[in-house]
Amino acid sequence: MKADIIEVAKRRGFFWKSSDIYQGISGFYDYGPIGSLLKRRFESLWRRYFLGLDDNFHEIESSLIMPENVFAASGHLQSFVDPIVRCSKCGHAERADHILEDILKESFEGLKAGEMMAIIKKHGIKCSKCKGAFSEVGTLNMMFPINVGTGNDVKKAYLIPETAQGAYVNFKACFDVMRRRLPLGLAIVGRAFRNEISPRQGLIRMREFTQAELQIFFDPEMIGSHERFDSIANYKLKLFPVKNRGNQKTEEIQAKEALSFLPKFYVYHMARVQQFYLDILRLPKEKFRFRELAEEERAFYNKYHWDIEIFLESTGWKEIAGLHYRTDHDLAGHEKTSKTSMHVNIDGKGILPHVLEISMGVDRNIYMLLELGYEEEKERTVIRFPRLLSPMDAGVFPLVNKDGLPEKAAEIKSLLEAAGFKAFYDDGGSIGRRYRRIDEIGVPAGITIDHDTLKSNTVTLRDRDTMRQIRVNIRDLSLTMKHFLEGEDMGKLGTIVETKQG
Amino acid sequence: MKADIIEVAKRRGFFWKSSDIYQGISGFYDYGPIGSLLKRRFESLWRRYFLGLDDNFHEIESSLIMPENVFAASGHLQSFVDPIVRCSKCGHAERADHILEDILKESFEGLKAGEMMAIIKKHGIKCSKCKGAFSEVGTLNMMFPINVGTGNDVKKAYLIPETAQGAYVNFKACFDVMRRRLPLGLAIVGRAFRNEISPRQGLIRMREFTQAELQIFFDPEMIGSHERFDSIANYKLKLFPVKNRGNQKTEEIQAKEALSFLPKFYVYHMARVQQFYLDILRLPKEKFRFRELAEEERAFYNKYHWDIEIFLESTGWKEIAGLHYRTDHDLAGHEKTSKTSMHVNIDGKGILPHVLEISMGVDRNIYMLLELGYEEEKERTVIRFPRLLSPMDAGVFPLVNKDGLPEKAAEIKSLLEAAGFKAFYDDGGSIGRRYRRIDEIGVPAGITIDHDTLKSNTVTLRDRDTMRQIRVNIRDLSLTMKHFLEGEDMGKLGTIVETKQG
Repeated sequence: MKADIIEVAKRRGFFWKSSDIYQGISGFYDYGPIGSLLKRRFESLWRRYFLGLDDNFHEIESSLIMPENVFAASGHLQSFVDPIVRCSKCGHAERADHILEDILKESFEGLKAGEMMAIIKKHGIKCSKCKGAFSEVGTLNMMFPINVGTGNDVKKAYLIPETAQGAYVNFKACFDVMRRRLPLGLAIVGRAFRNEISPRQGLIRMREFTQAELQIFFDPEMIGSHERFDSIANYKLKLFPVKNRGNQKTEEIQAKEALSFLPKFYVYHMARVQQFYLDILRLPKEKFRFRELAEEERAFYNKYHWDIEIFLESTGWKEIAGLHYRTDHDLAGHEKTSKTSMHVNIDGKGILPHVLEISMGVDRNIYMLLELGYEEEKERTVIRFPRLLSPMDAGVFPLVNKDGLPEKAAEIKSLLEAAGFKAFYDDGGSIGRRYRRIDEIGVPAGITIDHDTLKSNTVTLRDRDTMRQIRVNIRDLSLTMKHFLEGEDMGKLGTIVETKQG
Repeated sequence: MKADIIEVAKRRGFFWKSSDIYQGISGFYDYGPIGSLLKRRFESLWRRYFLGLDDNFHEIESSLIMPENVFAASGHLQSFVDPIVRCSKCGHAERADHILEDILKESFEGLKAGEMMAIIKKHGIKCSKCKGAFSEVGTLNMMFPINVGTGNDVKKAYLIPETAQGAYVNFKACFDVMRRRLPLGLAIVGRAFRNEISPRQGLIRMREFTQAELQIFFDPEMIGSHERFDSIANYKLKLFPVKNRGNQKTEEIQAKEALSFLPKFYVYHMARVQQFYLDILRLPKEKFRFRELAEEERAFYNKYHWDIEIFLESTGWKEIAGLHYRTDHDLAGHEKTSKTSMHVNIDGKGILPHVLEISMGVDRNIYMLLELGYEEEKERTVIRFPRLLSPMDAGVFPLVNKDGLPEKAAEIKSLLEAAGFKAFYDDGGSIGRRYRRIDEIGVPAGITIDHDTLKSNTVTLRDRDTMRQIRVNIRDLSLTMKHFLEGEDMGKLGTIVETKQG
């Protein structure tokens, strides 16, 4: 993460190190009042968009502690491990691939333990803390174990390393409740936990984090079709396939052209994910791409796996979501381990559904929005969040604290709130300073009540991004705000007025 | 929990045992698609109401894993313990007070270990599993320990046993961000974890549960005042004080009368909590009361502590929330342990704020709403949730699947959703059966599109509670729905029409 963003995030109430007064533990962050508003807005946009894709997509909530059997079935017990080396002198442990990356400036993810050890020995790499020699590369399971109960009644359990398992173990029950139709989508928005070894990237890699995941269960025979494919057939996808690794070229091709190497059901959801980022979050197209994972990079059960990457100045292309065709890996595993049939009956046909997973790290997305929107200009710091996704919609300011302007401003704040906007009132300091304050937390609209307001029933509406202002009749304020938040240009909403407050 | 409610909760998608296909672990529940909608609505109503009490009340999100120091400061390490006995023969452990309660049918909470052991011996109570003798009464800390990191880099931490600590450790940072004013309210809605010994009451006592808590930090010198007290001065509180334990009498007294034994700041918030239950959730007044806790029942740092109790048929009066005046216990503890000053400066005066806590168990509230609303009538099962708090607002039904009625119904569903209502479309089975289906999940409105709809542009709107119907012009549907959900009687919204579908 960028240092200036970390500083502003703390000063303006977005996020900071958890339990900071106790120096905290790496990999844990808390959201302050402003960050919490932003995060809830992201989650609610996510829900509205992804649950809106199909009338059989639903949200559920499952426990964060799940019994050991779940992870025997999912494979996490055996294979959710990181390669680690331990210093034979001081006991300090680090991720073997990260040490290699740090020192040799290359990616070593996916290498086998022996291969990594050979490189460590070849380069004579020593412990960063005490210069001691490293022991052999071992593995560490990244799940946090939990003992539930006491004495001989103890049940072994784990904190969930991903929300997905909650959807898989509940699939059958939800299928029965929701009228036995496929595709069925089960979404979970919630925490997950991974005992990362020395996490160092802020919100990008956390030990406790929030995921928004949608598991779509479907008939594998239907993978070549989607009833609404035509609506996106000509939509242009931005793809970075494995074959372009050499020339680093990102391609733009129509969804229907992608059918030559990907199935329809998968491509349909690629388009919908890209639209979420470009049309809803309004990210610049040049900073978005799907990155195909090579066979050795993806989990063995993922038949198709493209990551969603965003270009950040601080880190380059960064994974912030994934679209995984997981085949029958999950339901077959749970069927076998739990001895409960995961087959369903559709029109007399027994089916073991396959899973397409849309997986997002919410904190990463929040960080990305912050970094993409953050700008230090000559006279101010501003965060250009997508207007619909700002922590609040508008600041409401009386120009001065007299002549009835504060009362009028309070009235307008209530009016906006009754219309469903999130507004806040501020009468502290000069108007310029109050604008700076909302610029710095990314509130898109500044609404000022001045002496003209009392005469002409109009207020000024200021656009955070351009600092341009228009005068709006209070009668039209809600509708103008609605169009403004949906992305309409200020100049089309009224006549730009000159102002001294900038 | 009542058995018929557990059954309907599972069949209709409200909640069920977590990881059920693996037989799960007691004390863990998952919410299905319908329960998840209901829970999110509860949480959002809670937010809107409690964060709306003051413009300096804010929500934050803190980590579920916190370092050991936090709980040294809070006292949880030392005193968050349950009295347990272990069978000396089979090792089975149980809560000592629960065994006594089960066998002797009295409450033994708060008794000392020695006193409980004496009673166990006196009555010759043996292990319920193997009839072995019990060892001495010991204690078990109810927090789940977590080791973060590995090797000699391990940090001791715990899953939070309450959301409150997240607000306390973040108080100073939030105070600085939010312009340094008191009172400052910090709300957290999220999970908490307790290693309960043999939990047996479903959503009433869980090992992983959701709390909605608001910590109000205020200047202790201001406890005798509240600037909006006049607005509730004549409001009648329902109180069950300690002095009435003998006669079991609940009193109704005006808020201003309560000032003879409680401070204004506390009484103001009592009134607001009661209004949440009676005016927002619309519970019957006779099923609500505040119960004063006697000195030996409350934590030593709680100077005033009244629980909010609801009368349930299955359990009698049940605690579902609490209002705790915690004095400076929390901030003083963290100041001492972290060596970070928790004092704030207001107008040149150094203040260590006191805390008033409004604490609610979300799952308990959900269960309560289910049990209070649940009724098996002669011809149907119905759940009379408060209209604003139902999983969905309306079911939309074409009377028959032809003649353009399904298309018209889909159109009306979209219209309702554009107006912000949550509606769902159902064309399966007879109209009576579809009404039964929404009755059973507590959807307040049934909207049916029939042949008259195409002629007169009207639909029928059916009230779940009374099964009465009116005809509404589609043009007026959103506004009528709004009034209906806010509690307006069906008879006042239109002319009741006779129908055959009941």
